Amino acid sequence: MERVLYCGYSMSSSSELGLASMYRVIKKSGAERVSDEAADELRKILEELAQRIATQALDLSLHAGRKTIKSDDIKLAAKNILKL
Amino acid sequence: MERVLYCGYSMSSSSELGLASMYRVIKKSGAERVSDEAADELRKILEELAQRIATQALDLSLHAGRKTIKSDDIKLAAKNILKL
Repeated sequence: MERVLYCGYSMSSSSELGLASMYRVIKKSGAERVSDEAADELRKILEELAQRIATQALDLSLHAGRKTIKSDDIKLAAKNILKL
Repeated sequence: MERVLYCGYSMSSSSELGLASMYRVIKKSGAERVSDEAADELRKILEELAQRIATQALDLSLHAGRKTIKSDDIKLAAKNILKL
């Protein structure tokens, strides 16, 4: 059973993304209440996507002979991964 | 031309996601350097996705007769939106 709290600070994590941010994004949609697990699930999904985009962006930057990841690398990686 | 800095704190934003987090995720991929614009681009992409997932999750929770968004709403919304 999911606990319902107004903010999920109680979950520990080594994630790069903050749980409070996830909570705010979901609340912005108009949700009355958001379970801890929902905020954590969104974080996991976004983190996984971010890592996949970053990994492909790195390949693209190296492919272009650069050591710096630029916004075009991120855009193309996201396009490929998300099939935008 | 993109400025290259080690962390993009200089960009102001009303985003829910932190630029420093984006920078860390990209650095984790093994990138030597990350432009400010790259971190900002990743933030925009993730924020847009998060909002779309949250909006659909809200619809799904209401459809199920709930006022609380649960992790299953987020999972199904992400599956639909990302075609996972």
